[in-house]
Amino acid sequence: MKQITCQETRTISERVIFDGDLNDKGTLFGGKTLSLLDENAGLASFKVIKAKIATASYDHVNFWKPITTDKYIKFESFVTGVSGRQIEVFTKIISHDLKTDEREIAFSSFCTLVVLQAVELPEIVPETPEEKYLCAGFRKRLAGRRADYRQRDEFLSHLNIE
Amino acid sequence: MKQITCQETRTISERVIFDGDLNDKGTLFGGKTLSLLDENAGLASFKVIKAKIATASYDHVNFWKPITTDKYIKFESFVTGVSGRQIEVFTKIISHDLKTDEREIAFSSFCTLVVLQAVELPEIVPETPEEKYLCAGFRKRLAGRRADYRQRDEFLSHLNIE
Amino acid sequence: MKQITCQETRTISERVIFDGDLNDKGTLFGGKTLSLLDENAGLASFKVIKAKIATASYDHVNFWKPITTDKYIKFESFVTGVSGRQIEVFTKIISHDLKTDEREIAFSSFCTLVVLQAVELPEIVPETPEEKYLCAGFRKRLAGRRADYRQRDEFLSHLNIE
Amino acid sequence: MKQITCQETRTISERVIFDGDLNDKGTLFGGKTLSLLDENAGLASFKVIKAKIATASYDHVNFWKPITTDKYIKFESFVTGVSGRQIEVFTKIISHDLKTDEREIAFSSFCTLVVLQAVELPEIVPETPEEKYLCAGFRKRLAGRRADYRQRDEFLSHLNIE
Amino acid sequence: MKQITCQETRTISERVIFDGDLNDKGTLFGGKTLSLLDENAGLASFKVIKAKIATASYDHVNFWKPITTDKYIKFESFVTGVSGRQIEVFTKIISHDLKTDEREIAFSSFCTLVVLQAVELPEIVPETPEEKYLCAGFRKRLAGRRADYRQRDEFLSHLNIE
Amino acid sequence: MKQITCQETRTISERVIFDGDLNDKGTLFGGKTLSLLDENAGLASFKVIKAKIATASYDHVNFWKPITTDKYIKFESFVTGVSGRQIEVFTKIISHDLKTDEREIAFSSFCTLVVLQAVELPEIVPETPEEKYLCAGFRKRLAGRRADYRQRDEFLSHLNIE
Repeated sequence: MKQITCQETRTISERVIFDGDLNDKGTLFGGKTLSLLDENAGLASFKVIKAKIATASYDHVNFWKPITTDKYIKFESFVTGVSGRQIEVFTKIISHDLKTDEREIAFSSFCTLVVLQAVELPEIVPETPEEKYLCAGFRKRLAGRRADYRQRDEFLSHLNIE
Repeated sequence: MKQITCQETRTISERVIFDGDLNDKGTLFGGKTLSLLDENAGLASFKVIKAKIATASYDHVNFWKPITTDKYIKFESFVTGVSGRQIEVFTKIISHDLKTDEREIAFSSFCTLVVLQAVELPEIVPETPEEKYLCAGFRKRLAGRRADYRQRDEFLSHLNIE
Repeated sequence: MKQITCQETRTISERVIFDGDLNDKGTLFGGKTLSLLDENAGLASFKVIKAKIATASYDHVNFWKPITTDKYIKFESFVTGVSGRQIEVFTKIISHDLKTDEREIAFSSFCTLVVLQAVELPEIVPETPEEKYLCAGFRKRLAGRRADYRQRDEFLSHLNIE
Repeated sequence: MKQITCQETRTISERVIFDGDLNDKGTLFGGKTLSLLDENAGLASFKVIKAKIATASYDHVNFWKPITTDKYIKFESFVTGVSGRQIEVFTKIISHDLKTDEREIAFSSFCTLVVLQAVELPEIVPETPEEKYLCAGFRKRLAGRRADYRQRDEFLSHLNIE
Repeated sequence: MKQITCQETRTISERVIFDGDLNDKGTLFGGKTLSLLDENAGLASFKVIKAKIATASYDHVNFWKPITTDKYIKFESFVTGVSGRQIEVFTKIISHDLKTDEREIAFSSFCTLVVLQAVELPEIVPETPEEKYLCAGFRKRLAGRRADYRQRDEFLSHLNIE
Repeated sequence: MKQITCQETRTISERVIFDGDLNDKGTLFGGKTLSLLDENAGLASFKVIKAKIATASYDHVNFWKPITTDKYIKFESFVTGVSGRQIEVFTKIISHDLKTDEREIAFSSFCTLVVLQAVELPEIVPETPEEKYLCAGFRKRLAGRRADYRQRDEFLSHLNIE
């Protein structure tokens, strides 16, 4: 079975915060964060396999700290597990205060993407302690998603489609 | 205690899909969906209380069906529970095929927002079967988030901040 | 002859105002209002007939009240008349002050769209007093547009095309 | 009384058409046209008087010809009349086919802007035949707007504000 | 040999500055300036020849004066030389202070574009002193670019492609 | 004297290419490239000194290879020299073909930024062969810019400011 390291899928985007992206609290608009997130997480999955891939779900999406214009931010995504045609991508945002040099984890999330054709995905190999910790949690998160998915028909049947 | 119905917080945005918003699969870019989602969910929370509110987390974020330019979409958000200073907002996207008139639930999610000052939030009163079903699940989803949150320090301690 | 109610064409989009959309007066940039207007009015016309439709003209476009970031806005469009291959869509913006709960009509306009192929359009049926009032004025507005259109060649002949 | 020529207020913006700005008919999205229009017309009014100015209304807004990516376009705005604190700005779009060099008037409109403080506006002096023709129609268009405005309270009283 | 005047390629775009386009110094974000620059310069080259044309390089790109919201700006581009399949376009931005009417050259640059097929380009004919001055420098700037280009392989060989 | 390594200023942004960012040749619009460039280069300079910094000039801006939607791109910027209050930032774009895994240098440029207050800038320390090569050329590029700058008044005096 083919192998690929988390590091080989790592995708980075450093960004400055523009005044035009701020909300009424003077912090980065959540929708902007989510839009950049999806671009960065998607690119990490493209490094695993040459195929069409679509976003399927997000979970554990946490805005840990507000992001202001005093800071620049660094999106960092890498793959933390595969199962069947599903690829899980972890993304964190590290904010870096331009004045104090203080760094914080401002945001983190897990995204599940689905390959749109039959393929055999490579095994994901973690190397660093962070990668090993996150990959170790994959099976448990997958089980949570499967429980969610089993309730899908029941859940959707309660939603009004008018 | 003050009361507010789900209906009073309902926020709607109908949108056409532009070619410029499509990804390489010919479907609406996930990041665009998430950006519009956050705007619509945020507005639903603003109808509950006159105060500064920030997005705290998302969970159960599911892209159920691809959204193409043959369709228009309707974002519909409403509040499904409050606890302390937290407000939970449910959002669904109904896609409507312009040719066949077929409708589908294309997307759904729960967003948790936090009021940034001490306030007493009104009780949320569901009226329709959909509202009652979603509000009934609030306590269980809240418990899941609390479990997630209790692991926060342990989780963040494993993340590399370099 | 087929019939369709104004209500069946009603298209709604609620929006928050971002700082990045404000002009030097601290109010929503007119161009942003017009861009959102055209999207919402177009979608209302798509609900009348499954065909290619293009914007032909606007009239009675009035910015009644300035829109500021203290407010959220609700675009509401519906069809108010058809004639030949023309569809008239009325749009109003209701602004809602987040602090005082005061509501105002901030903007209104009539848009005429043209179906790009030969079709028989359904009859438009107003039900509420507002719908009846607006549909009652359709013939008069149409006459005004026809007068405008008859002067088209004369008008265009005076314009410099260099 | 101070005078200013139409020419001194003339504002020009030439633009290429991007694929990302096209609608499902392969032509420039009307909302994009209107957004650029408002920016160009506003700038023409800023050349008349150093004061805060806001868009008040649009009329005679006509999309004469579709705009496609084979063409580049030229917005041209100039002031065609003043009355009290109102400034009328005419805007036309000339489309220029990059292959055939054929030029067309693709769009025209009249915008009324209002100066937000008490000022004495200069007299507008037309020089070319086009300017003279358009300025000659100012009084008649103003009368039409005044008739519209007199019905304002009656019109707004029929609109539902829920 | 066919001839075309600089004037026939002149491309103008006047713009107001929006708050959403400002950086942390309260001046127009450089990236916005460069994006508008490339659009305007490209359009000037399209007026020379009906063919596919791509941006190849920029040089002498100088931000002479900061651009603030008190000003409106005018991009002005025209062709200043051709050689083989290369077209050189000069662009300047004139900023105009809305309060003091003071004008400044805020920015200037030279762009080289390449026609993507074999064509014979017309001779460029300058008429005004400004056009004559800029066209007179073309051969020297071209020589500088050729020197740069001769070092291309050596330069690129030193760049890390990991 | 304080020292900072090139590596400490390195700024990375990996991006996917959206259809909405393509021009009529099916390649990334130059203006989009330049806009992302300025954001990335600016961020590299912010890592050198905590102060207000503005873009002053660009040179050696070369679009070496077209960028298409089959590729993702990686912006990489780092500081390659300082002199007085000037900071030089080198930026390259590596394009990566998603199908063939082939990598190319698609773009490179040098940007000069100016610190807007009196400061002592740290010495820049290159470590890798690429960094040493680029830093070694700094004095020569600086001399070229100074020659350009000495001609500034003469150059600007020939430009028409009407």
